[in-house]
Amino acid sequence: MSYEVKSLNEECGVFGVWGHPDASRVVYFGLHSLQHRGQEGAGIVSNDQGRLRGHRDLGLLSEVFSDENKLTKLKGNAAIGHVRYATAGNGSVDNIQPFLFKFYDSQIALAHNGNLTNAKTLRRELEKDGAIFHSNSDTEILMHLIRRSQQPTLNGQLKEALNQVKGGFAYLLITEDAIVAALDPNGFRPLSIGQMKNGAYVIASETCALEVSGAAFVRDVQPGELVIINEEGITIEQYTTETQHAICAMEYIYFARPDSNIARVNVHTARKEMGRRLAQEAPVEADMVIGVPNSSLSAASGYAEYSGIPYELGLVKNQYVARTFIQPTQELREQGVRMKLSAVRGVVEGKRVILVDDSIVRGTTSRRIVNLLKEAGAKEVHLRIASPPLKYPCFYGIDIQTRKELIAANHSIEEIKECVKSDTLAFLSEQGLIDSIGLTFDAPYSGLCMAYFNGDYPTPLYDYEEQYQASLQEQTSFF
Amino acid sequence: MSYEVKSLNEECGVFGVWGHPDASRVVYFGLHSLQHRGQEGAGIVSNDQGRLRGHRDLGLLSEVFSDENKLTKLKGNAAIGHVRYATAGNGSVDNIQPFLFKFYDSQIALAHNGNLTNAKTLRRELEKDGAIFHSNSDTEILMHLIRRSQQPTLNGQLKEALNQVKGGFAYLLITEDAIVAALDPNGFRPLSIGQMKNGAYVIASETCALEVSGAAFVRDVQPGELVIINEEGITIEQYTTETQHAICAMEYIYFARPDSNIARVNVHTARKEMGRRLAQEAPVEADMVIGVPNSSLSAASGYAEYSGIPYELGLVKNQYVARTFIQPTQELREQGVRMKLSAVRGVVEGKRVILVDDSIVRGTTSRRIVNLLKEAGAKEVHLRIASPPLKYPCFYGIDIQTRKELIAANHSIEEIKECVKSDTLAFLSEQGLIDSIGLTFDAPYSGLCMAYFNGDYPTPLYDYEEQYQASLQEQTSFF
Amino acid sequence: MSYEVKSLNEECGVFGVWGHPDASRVVYFGLHSLQHRGQEGAGIVSNDQGRLRGHRDLGLLSEVFSDENKLTKLKGNAAIGHVRYATAGNGSVDNIQPFLFKFYDSQIALAHNGNLTNAKTLRRELEKDGAIFHSNSDTEILMHLIRRSQQPTLNGQLKEALNQVKGGFAYLLITEDAIVAALDPNGFRPLSIGQMKNGAYVIASETCALEVSGAAFVRDVQPGELVIINEEGITIEQYTTETQHAICAMEYIYFARPDSNIARVNVHTARKEMGRRLAQEAPVEADMVIGVPNSSLSAASGYAEYSGIPYELGLVKNQYVARTFIQPTQELREQGVRMKLSAVRGVVEGKRVILVDDSIVRGTTSRRIVNLLKEAGAKEVHLRIASPPLKYPCFYGIDIQTRKELIAANHSIEEIKECVKSDTLAFLSEQGLIDSIGLTFDAPYSGLCMAYFNGDYPTPLYDYEEQYQASLQEQTSFF
Amino acid sequence: MSYEVKSLNEECGVFGVWGHPDASRVVYFGLHSLQHRGQEGAGIVSNDQGRLRGHRDLGLLSEVFSDENKLTKLKGNAAIGHVRYATAGNGSVDNIQPFLFKFYDSQIALAHNGNLTNAKTLRRELEKDGAIFHSNSDTEILMHLIRRSQQPTLNGQLKEALNQVKGGFAYLLITEDAIVAALDPNGFRPLSIGQMKNGAYVIASETCALEVSGAAFVRDVQPGELVIINEEGITIEQYTTETQHAICAMEYIYFARPDSNIARVNVHTARKEMGRRLAQEAPVEADMVIGVPNSSLSAASGYAEYSGIPYELGLVKNQYVARTFIQPTQELREQGVRMKLSAVRGVVEGKRVILVDDSIVRGTTSRRIVNLLKEAGAKEVHLRIASPPLKYPCFYGIDIQTRKELIAANHSIEEIKECVKSDTLAFLSEQGLIDSIGLTFDAPYSGLCMAYFNGDYPTPLYDYEEQYQASLQEQTSFF
Repeated sequence: MSYEVKSLNEECGVFGVWGHPDASRVVYFGLHSLQHRGQEGAGIVSNDQGRLRGHRDLGLLSEVFSDENKLTKLKGNAAIGHVRYATAGNGSVDNIQPFLFKFYDSQIALAHNGNLTNAKTLRRELEKDGAIFHSNSDTEILMHLIRRSQQPTLNGQLKEALNQVKGGFAYLLITEDAIVAALDPNGFRPLSIGQMKNGAYVIASETCALEVSGAAFVRDVQPGELVIINEEGITIEQYTTETQHAICAMEYIYFARPDSNIARVNVHTARKEMGRRLAQEAPVEADMVIGVPNSSLSAASGYAEYSGIPYELGLVKNQYVARTFIQPTQELREQGVRMKLSAVRGVVEGKRVILVDDSIVRGTTSRRIVNLLKEAGAKEVHLRIASPPLKYPCFYGIDIQTRKELIAANHSIEEIKECVKSDTLAFLSEQGLIDSIGLTFDAPYSGLCMAYFNGDYPTPLYDYEEQYQASLQEQTSFF
Repeated sequence: MSYEVKSLNEECGVFGVWGHPDASRVVYFGLHSLQHRGQEGAGIVSNDQGRLRGHRDLGLLSEVFSDENKLTKLKGNAAIGHVRYATAGNGSVDNIQPFLFKFYDSQIALAHNGNLTNAKTLRRELEKDGAIFHSNSDTEILMHLIRRSQQPTLNGQLKEALNQVKGGFAYLLITEDAIVAALDPNGFRPLSIGQMKNGAYVIASETCALEVSGAAFVRDVQPGELVIINEEGITIEQYTTETQHAICAMEYIYFARPDSNIARVNVHTARKEMGRRLAQEAPVEADMVIGVPNSSLSAASGYAEYSGIPYELGLVKNQYVARTFIQPTQELREQGVRMKLSAVRGVVEGKRVILVDDSIVRGTTSRRIVNLLKEAGAKEVHLRIASPPLKYPCFYGIDIQTRKELIAANHSIEEIKECVKSDTLAFLSEQGLIDSIGLTFDAPYSGLCMAYFNGDYPTPLYDYEEQYQASLQEQTSFF
Repeated sequence: MSYEVKSLNEECGVFGVWGHPDASRVVYFGLHSLQHRGQEGAGIVSNDQGRLRGHRDLGLLSEVFSDENKLTKLKGNAAIGHVRYATAGNGSVDNIQPFLFKFYDSQIALAHNGNLTNAKTLRRELEKDGAIFHSNSDTEILMHLIRRSQQPTLNGQLKEALNQVKGGFAYLLITEDAIVAALDPNGFRPLSIGQMKNGAYVIASETCALEVSGAAFVRDVQPGELVIINEEGITIEQYTTETQHAICAMEYIYFARPDSNIARVNVHTARKEMGRRLAQEAPVEADMVIGVPNSSLSAASGYAEYSGIPYELGLVKNQYVARTFIQPTQELREQGVRMKLSAVRGVVEGKRVILVDDSIVRGTTSRRIVNLLKEAGAKEVHLRIASPPLKYPCFYGIDIQTRKELIAANHSIEEIKECVKSDTLAFLSEQGLIDSIGLTFDAPYSGLCMAYFNGDYPTPLYDYEEQYQASLQEQTSFF
Repeated sequence: MSYEVKSLNEECGVFGVWGHPDASRVVYFGLHSLQHRGQEGAGIVSNDQGRLRGHRDLGLLSEVFSDENKLTKLKGNAAIGHVRYATAGNGSVDNIQPFLFKFYDSQIALAHNGNLTNAKTLRRELEKDGAIFHSNSDTEILMHLIRRSQQPTLNGQLKEALNQVKGGFAYLLITEDAIVAALDPNGFRPLSIGQMKNGAYVIASETCALEVSGAAFVRDVQPGELVIINEEGITIEQYTTETQHAICAMEYIYFARPDSNIARVNVHTARKEMGRRLAQEAPVEADMVIGVPNSSLSAASGYAEYSGIPYELGLVKNQYVARTFIQPTQELREQGVRMKLSAVRGVVEGKRVILVDDSIVRGTTSRRIVNLLKEAGAKEVHLRIASPPLKYPCFYGIDIQTRKELIAANHSIEEIKECVKSDTLAFLSEQGLIDSIGLTFDAPYSGLCMAYFNGDYPTPLYDYEEQYQASLQEQTSFF
């Protein structure tokens, strides 16, 4: 049940609230609007007068809480929740968050969005020292670091732990008397604070979850910040001052919901601007502009607006998910592809089409969509990608960890065009992307992480360094 | 799990294939593209060398066939299937189609899209004569009429039966040696024939299901036609010649998928034209045009195109369905509404918005959407409806059977505007609708059924006449 | 999930109550004590102030009503229920009873225990006359006969219908104002009436269900009787006077629960007496008597008592059902057998054992049990069967419809002994069985049906005659 | 779904095999025969060429592995499994065993039967030192002790850990190259070794599981022993020499299956002897002896044999489990009780009955059974208990942890008789119990733990000492 017809996956979303009598319901609604960030599993932990209670399971949020009693039992006026994205073949409930820990002296639950770059090293050191891990998730590491810290307070223990983990992370914790959030020193992943009408504070991976909760935007959590919300209100501290913005560009391009703002930039508006810039950089004569639903519709309308070529609904996405395991046989295989996306023959037949997509990973989906349009009678298909070619893996929380999967890491633009069988092909330039988003941080690329496009990683790669260097030598053919 | 945020429901979709080695899979894929026509239940019956086998259950198609074995068991090279729409509170599997009948001398399965106007009378007469019904569905009536006919052949029995039932119907039957389809004398419901590359014939409620099966469009089934597909090919007969086109206008406005063609008119194109005509009939000065996703996006883009006002993504629809039973409490009630639809603050804040919707039933949804936009900072919201006001019930297969539910049957346009709290409100004219669709049949309204707008029913109402006359006297306030 | 480690199956149990505020709960408890009569499915229909409501499904009673709401919805002070036995490979909910029929003028539900011998003929005639059946079950036939009767009252229609059906049947109906029961003219199947403390009448397939409901035994329903229970109390009529007792002997031998009385004879006491008589007819020197749990424990204790040889627990039955589909492979196959039954090595090692079983069908189970005991060290195993050899099929409601499955129809006692590998083997005589049960009806065999032992069927076989005659010519080897 | 109509619960069963190509299937069959020791959950971990794989869940074994694929995936020729007993209200899968641990350098899984008396203290110390626990189970403690041990080998680490835990325990571990078992220094819980025909070793909580696996008994694991089975065969070491037999007497009286041998004494034979001794110690004139099914049937037959009074089937246990949550209302409450157990009126009516039960916990069940018999017409009911009065809690693995639940801890025998409303009441003497079982160990009570009867605990109570002393002061009335 994927959000889009693409194999790019975000790693998780978090949501928390402090100070609302129906805290777990607020979290349920918040997580529902973050479901696109993870569909493998979901969980919520509430604070019921100092006692933490949780429920988590595999499946969509609506499946995990299909029995309303499961939500009703999560009493209390504070709660945090998590949606986890699906990795192939590792469907264990042990990895579903928040993780809830009950100690003789305290209780803590923990949720995490991101990816650590020194997890393997930390885990090995901890195990050598007697630690026992119960999941494959990196998330557990932070808790071991906290419990082994010699600092006298949880605040101190947490700061010490946060300075040991490296990579991209947005942590959300709930304790007996507070909810706590922390963002990595580069702010790879988004994390925002809002406030409900009754004064309750909420924290969410995307601002769309603030809207759905009726919460007003307060501010974004900044790199290196530790946010504590408790009975005395909200306190923001720095656990480190060595910070520099490197916000994940793919959040703007593909992951985030168009109604979210990241670093105060609206995602739909950024995408529309990418489409306008793309029209300027790579114009082509045609009868209509079509976007791949749903993530590319903003960019497509921007392209249409700038170029003056009509924007049309040439592709329809089926809103009902098909069981992928019902495999078509023989000649039906091709029909199976059509279950997710249909070309509108009545619109495209005999027409020259500009097809706008947000990105290309393997190229497989692009080839199929071009083919759909041609079969429906499109005379020409000009593929326009509203971001630069993806050439390098991500180690901060996006599910591309090898160059092998990336067609642009292995082939030229001309070769990709041959592969996807479009009449022409063009990508947005790196500068075009940066300008379209329009961040103004005093940092490389105005505060964006552009590593997937140019390999310029904002941090050391730690455990991944060796694997990364090796991958630079490899070449895979997609033909 | 509704297709749209609206309380208008279509009654069912049918799909059949003859001559394909994986017939039940072809039907599965076809039904998947018709899922928007019914989500309560689904079923498939296949013909395995003359022996009919079936599976049906409550739930979405993907749930009914979540175990692939259930599909694999439906062997054979012909099959028919059905998706049923959800009526409140009557969730019995006994009503899920196709109905499969096994007699000592033959086997038949039957699926139905539509609504009979003389069902009650026929059923009572049959029961008085000893007939036993096993469902609440009108569909069973046809089978009793067939079995009681004194005609010597099934073809003769079927024709006799079809002349006894009145109203809107598209029947699809499978026997031991054929699939058979029949359309009512007014052609209220759409039904089209296609042909796959291997020569197999398919019949479907909408042409989008032909596309997904890789079938080429052959022709629409015409009012009063009986279509027989068997080993000798396709035969089309008239079971009556007293026919006159009255195609359901709501199929174009709301129900059908935009990639379908009905009577050779593309639905997206018709909707876009409705939007253009609406812009012409009811212009207003504004900063942007926004459509209610997903059914009104075509009309909105048409309005934008004609008016020259930019088309924007101001509303986002959550693709993940929320359990509606998880009821928000107190102040959360309003947040609950936001789970399906979100306004994009970054787009609409401080702007004058033209909001295009396809229709208004109760007005509740419109009021909520206007409110969402205003809360997100829209300065003005001008509501434009791309169809005429809904004032009369439908008895031919759409789930509006009383005027009480229709705000436009009970209030003036000015009152509706007050109710939904938009700054202005306008509807498309009846002639505007007829022109936008552009049918050319030699029949009233060029071949459209316009009864919901003007009460001009193309047939007698039979069992419903009394109830209808009474409803004309009633008035319900929506304030 | 079979009651015993044997392949003999009863066909169903019925239970009804009139006059209790928690009628459906009373039925639930009653059916629970009849669960051994059928495990494929269960259902209950209640009368809620004249409106019938039902729920039925595949599975054990506790599974069908696993959600208590399903029981709570069946309001009203009268209800009937049914448990259905499992036939291989026909798991459709359509066959689960009671069948609930809603007509324009009335509502009736119907449940049935037994088997008709002229069902095929009746069904064909009805279908030729336009009747439509919705299940494979014979049970539906009665309803068609009722609805087609020209009699003016339901009572008259029912009597006319009961005189048309032949074979073994105990029917239980619920209407808008009564529950009605009817027994076939031979009384093949048991059916008893009881009364609760509050005056409510109950009807049940076995008296154990009266006990569980706290109802006192009133009387057995007699052959050819029609029992009507309504607001005016209980009325018993004869729908035919051509009756003669032929109570199923297998009910005493195997099917019924030991705490039930049939025709006022306690089943446990009858079985114990069979064991005593068997000890008298077929004595053997040994160290202990062991019964096959659970159905043969009564007979074994009778054998021990008469012979003076100690009764021991030499076989233990696992109370937890194993999934039979988890098939052991290779050498594990034999261990798999041991999951249901274990020999107690500490008891039987080095001992001469008399193994008492109630009957032998295919001989497979007997061979396995003898083998279990020998592997556990038993020196000798003397098999004693507390009933005569099963040689002929049953057409009145027991699941043996062919002689092919019966080892005793195909082999001599000496051959059976070789097959099951016991040291000696003996069966109870026919007269011994008749005497042990001790009925005193003025009818052949004192009122028992002994057909499975001697082929003396108390009625014509109608539709089965031909098949039966053919089977007499066949011979199947079990070696 | 309890094994008996009693509130005494065993804590778990373990089973392991080394050297069989279908190891997980062997474990499945073994656990199936141990299901009576725990019904809350079950799990299996297999060793697939050094890689451990597991599956565990809440529910009966047949439910946990209802999908055969789950078993098939557990490849390998060694495996261990566990069944867990149900404690009220703590249904978390986190507590279901075996626990599977994956470290950077090794993998281990662990299952446990028993109860530690110093768990709370150990856990607190470990947590203070940074350990993180993931379940409420004591079982995890051993793993933390192992991982923190400074010993160079797993064998050394395990021995060190085993000397730190106190109480009753039978541990079963599987590593990458062995399965390992350990028994506490008193041998409270049973644990036996067997060998299959192919040479594979099995270890099981009861010998009935050896039988079901076709394994021959090799020897019992002795107190203080550590058993290692690997490619080189079986090795048995002592991790401590401070041992003394104190085998749980309740295993003989109630928990173990009658076909099991504990310390080479057959359980059925021991129970029968308890019945004989009881007949000698507490004779009474009567017409019949009846046992409470199923656990008291052996004792009842012993009583009958010694007294010469006929043994009868006066109580029938329903083999189908009723949903307990379907609560009867008002007058139905009493009928609900009858769902599990029925008195056989035809047997007991007008008779003087000796009712043999194995033990009395709260007295509630006894009172109900006496009442059942009286209602079925029994003239007198003489209750005979085949064990001494239960007066003290158990801390070694049986679910009686407070004296409040024990009627005999709070009332005299005369008072109990009044409470359960039997005509007479007698218990077996302590010496009678010891003699009946007939152990010959050089230890108090011949090697039995008799603490529940006399408060003579064979070990210090550690964490429980304080609670126990307090409980001695309390008195609860059961009237």
